[in-house]
Amino acid sequence: MRPAASIGQALEEVDTPALILDLDVFENNLSVLSESLRGKRVRVRPHAKTHKCPEIAKRQLAAGAVGVCCQKVSEAEALLEGGIEDILISNEVVGAPKIARLAELCRHARIGVCVDNAENLRQIENSGAKLDVYVELELGMGRCGIAPGEPAAALARGIARSSHLRFGGLQAYHGRAQHLRTMEERRATIADASRKVLLTKSILEKSGVSCPIVTGAGSGTFMFEVESGAWDEIQPGSYIFMDADYARNEWSAQLPRFQHALFVLCTAMSRPSPEIAIVDAGLKASSVDSGMPGVWKRPGLAYIKASDEHGVLQASPGAAVPALGEKLLLVPGHCDPTVNLYDWYVCVRRGVVEALWPITARGALT
Amino acid sequence: MRPAASIGQALEEVDTPALILDLDVFENNLSVLSESLRGKRVRVRPHAKTHKCPEIAKRQLAAGAVGVCCQKVSEAEALLEGGIEDILISNEVVGAPKIARLAELCRHARIGVCVDNAENLRQIENSGAKLDVYVELELGMGRCGIAPGEPAAALARGIARSSHLRFGGLQAYHGRAQHLRTMEERRATIADASRKVLLTKSILEKSGVSCPIVTGAGSGTFMFEVESGAWDEIQPGSYIFMDADYARNEWSAQLPRFQHALFVLCTAMSRPSPEIAIVDAGLKASSVDSGMPGVWKRPGLAYIKASDEHGVLQASPGAAVPALGEKLLLVPGHCDPTVNLYDWYVCVRRGVVEALWPITARGALT
Repeated sequence: MRPAASIGQALEEVDTPALILDLDVFENNLSVLSESLRGKRVRVRPHAKTHKCPEIAKRQLAAGAVGVCCQKVSEAEALLEGGIEDILISNEVVGAPKIARLAELCRHARIGVCVDNAENLRQIENSGAKLDVYVELELGMGRCGIAPGEPAAALARGIARSSHLRFGGLQAYHGRAQHLRTMEERRATIADASRKVLLTKSILEKSGVSCPIVTGAGSGTFMFEVESGAWDEIQPGSYIFMDADYARNEWSAQLPRFQHALFVLCTAMSRPSPEIAIVDAGLKASSVDSGMPGVWKRPGLAYIKASDEHGVLQASPGAAVPALGEKLLLVPGHCDPTVNLYDWYVCVRRGVVEALWPITARGALT
Repeated sequence: MRPAASIGQALEEVDTPALILDLDVFENNLSVLSESLRGKRVRVRPHAKTHKCPEIAKRQLAAGAVGVCCQKVSEAEALLEGGIEDILISNEVVGAPKIARLAELCRHARIGVCVDNAENLRQIENSGAKLDVYVELELGMGRCGIAPGEPAAALARGIARSSHLRFGGLQAYHGRAQHLRTMEERRATIADASRKVLLTKSILEKSGVSCPIVTGAGSGTFMFEVESGAWDEIQPGSYIFMDADYARNEWSAQLPRFQHALFVLCTAMSRPSPEIAIVDAGLKASSVDSGMPGVWKRPGLAYIKASDEHGVLQASPGAAVPALGEKLLLVPGHCDPTVNLYDWYVCVRRGVVEALWPITARGALT
């Protein structure tokens, strides 16, 4: 893996495309989260599916996180290899080879996993793994999870009966809510989710099963979960980077808008007409599933079209069009899948490369 | 890089998500291309941006290709490292670090590159690199390239005057045409492109500059380029794999429809309701820029939504819904960016893993 830059290099000398992390802004985003939670009784377990990088996880732990989440066994393996020892796989793990690897992980670190199905629970139990098992609730996002209330409670009782599994609590994440644009829509959706969580907890209490932790929430809603009182732990991921899609949300003093810390550095490689520049970063350099990237601090320039290796920038009348060879920063449309395209974060402070952090869980799919 | 499977393993035992190459179909696609060109005077230079894999490039050469194309210097480096010695970078290379690497490549292999701008040409010339330089024409796809006719011819004369650069010819690719749905739209678009190519060639001839090669064309149009007589070389990429987007095109006996050889193997990991299955392959496992993946040979099942690590399959009434843990094959919406998410092709013949081919140019962005 050829390094993507050299320490001490000026940002404008870094070859392109490159994934740039602005360390001042990143560190400030860590602080903004901590500040916004000051005095609240909630644990922070940031989502490492966003960054896939033990170096970042370590800084989140240093800022007070209790551990991290990830979505895949192979991500957990990469994080453990990088020294992270408290990992919740906030997802179901299905199939014998993955469950065997999960059992192996538990021998080296505190590992949690989610279930939404009794058959899957039985397979995990039969592996002999000693781990925290959470019941994932279906809160209305239309993905994994079991119905709140009695179905979830019955599954939790199944975990609590196990001799070697520990009932970790409830995984209660509403992904769709993160990108509802207005504060009011997000607030209402989490209020509804909160009722489902509390219903499930009360049924559990009546059956004499204590629910250690309710965990969930993302960068777009976490303060609603915290203020509901129903969650013990939050799992924000994107707050460290802040992508263009999250920037389209409404924010407020109550729920802070984090600042863009993650960029794709690109080069204008062709100038086919006076108002158009073609850059060398297309959809293999910045994921377009949630819209085109933004052009950073270049008013009047819009990234209008992506193909595999090219992006088309269009200038509005009077806007400065980049010269051939000029470098620009793009704000990715969606940070998680964009990070997954790179092997390195080029970490920059005030225009100089300070560090290179390997994205060791890049491509960790299984 | 942990191998994605074991040789001799049954397909249904491969852990998921995994990128599967059906070798029988892949080899047949190679043959179909050769057959369809039998008796035509045209060279084949397949595009390696699709597969990023020297093992595949070698098989294309064995099937008669004169060399391969790629889009990035780092892709060319990976291909050269894998033993490929005739590579056209069908794209502009801009910026001193990349041009220095290009010059280094030329010391080990026959390398071509494109230009669309005199300033870029001067930079490449000043590097001292000995290589084939092609003029890229803007044929109406709205990306890189110089206007056909006199502007392109003037740039070509600039190359021909150089003491150490060789004028390779014209790069004439119409990317947008590949996905126009009807045969007639594609035919008309390539007919227009052909006139622009022939105009440029005739101006060049009048200036006494011979044009060795006109190269271009993709899997969706190549026969139109061949039959126009204006092209000497074609650059199809996707024909080896055939993605879901290309499958939506109209095809005919004249322009063959290649068969799906590339799949993403996934597992049903949750069954939240009777008509829904959640699979473990989301948009980090199959690029959704050109639409959702198809579900292979499972009538009535549709992949309706992708999030980072999950896909939602919906069954129409009466269709069989996969059981928890059941494995399915998906047909990627767009093969090129999907391949770029993986480190290995799991090469399967009649249901058994026969080989693992590393995708050595995966993530080769610079």
